Amino acid sequence: MIWNRVDPAKVRRLFYPQVSVVVAVKSDGRIGAMPAIWCMPLSFNPPLIGIALAPEHETCKMIKKARGFTVNWLDYSHAREVGELGEISGRDFADKLAAVNLRTVKSKVNPQPLIREASAVLECQVREEHRTGTHELVIGEVLEAHASAHFRDYWDFSKYEPLPYAGTEQKRGKSWRFMSTRRATMRVAFKHSG
Amino acid sequence: MIWNRVDPAKVRRLFYPQVSVVVAVKSDGRIGAMPAIWCMPLSFNPPLIGIALAPEHETCKMIKKARGFTVNWLDYSHAREVGELGEISGRDFADKLAAVNLRTVKSKVNPQPLIREASAVLECQVREEHRTGTHELVIGEVLEAHASAHFRDYWDFSKYEPLPYAGTEQKRGKSWRFMSTRRATMRVAFKHSG
Repeated sequence: MIWNRVDPAKVRRLFYPQVSVVVAVKSDGRIGAMPAIWCMPLSFNPPLIGIALAPEHETCKMIKKARGFTVNWLDYSHAREVGELGEISGRDFADKLAAVNLRTVKSKVNPQPLIREASAVLECQVREEHRTGTHELVIGEVLEAHASAHFRDYWDFSKYEPLPYAGTEQKRGKSWRFMSTRRATMRVAFKHSG
Repeated sequence: MIWNRVDPAKVRRLFYPQVSVVVAVKSDGRIGAMPAIWCMPLSFNPPLIGIALAPEHETCKMIKKARGFTVNWLDYSHAREVGELGEISGRDFADKLAAVNLRTVKSKVNPQPLIREASAVLECQVREEHRTGTHELVIGEVLEAHASAHFRDYWDFSKYEPLPYAGTEQKRGKSWRFMSTRRATMRVAFKHSG
């Protein structure tokens, strides 16, 4: 293979496609949420997951305060809502999920909001935080996990269509690009220019 | 959405599909390597990545000793080699990559092996290690990154076909299941029963 050097600022894009999740939190009566792709398991038992967030995001600040959060997998049919969540700020809304027409249901184990439209959800308690360069790595213990009937031992991908993020696109304005596992590409236009 | 409770031991499978990478290392003249899916960026600048490995794996022990490693993206055409790497132990081979017919080229910045057949490679130095439950989270700084001509600002997915892991399958023996972004499923049979 012949290789070209990759600019360090673009290294993260080598990891694409990565399934998007929505991380959600309730703190001081407000609901925050944001799409995230830097999210992965870190342990079998206890079940730990890690999520790396930019600390300037309102959602990150709220998670650090609430000491809990949820992880929500929305399927491909919700690409637009997930993209839009990344385009608005939690500072402007008391319920950021409602602002993109997603509904919540309360977690049974902590006061954190689960997204009703999600195909799977994790209820997490913050165990550790590590500052890693520009980001904050939040390590959460999964207290409870639930999924639709399309997940049994594994996802049935003939029924559940995941939402892998594949980067942005500059074509008549900037868009989020999601890659279907069924070979279509969904674009969600950026609202603000950037 | 109607949800069913997910067994904590199966939580990690909610994250599928996840693109497989091969992490490789040279230590004491031996080459170790293993497939990994718990690998993601942790910072823009410096470019940091995290990889969570089971500490009992020979490759994990070698990385802790060598203080360096590489991350290699093999495309879908190499599913078999990636699956096979997960089925043999580093204890049995002086060069585990050669054992599955993958060739190496030396990194320019450290003594770590890059996989010649890879579509993209990262050369990393270990910055931190955190024990997270059953796994060891190794945080590496990316010293150099290279990719094939199919990556410019982003991957060109019409040319580069990634290798997302979708779990194992119990059907005439146990297999690794990789999910093509072009709608085929590749199965790599387990060599040992398990």
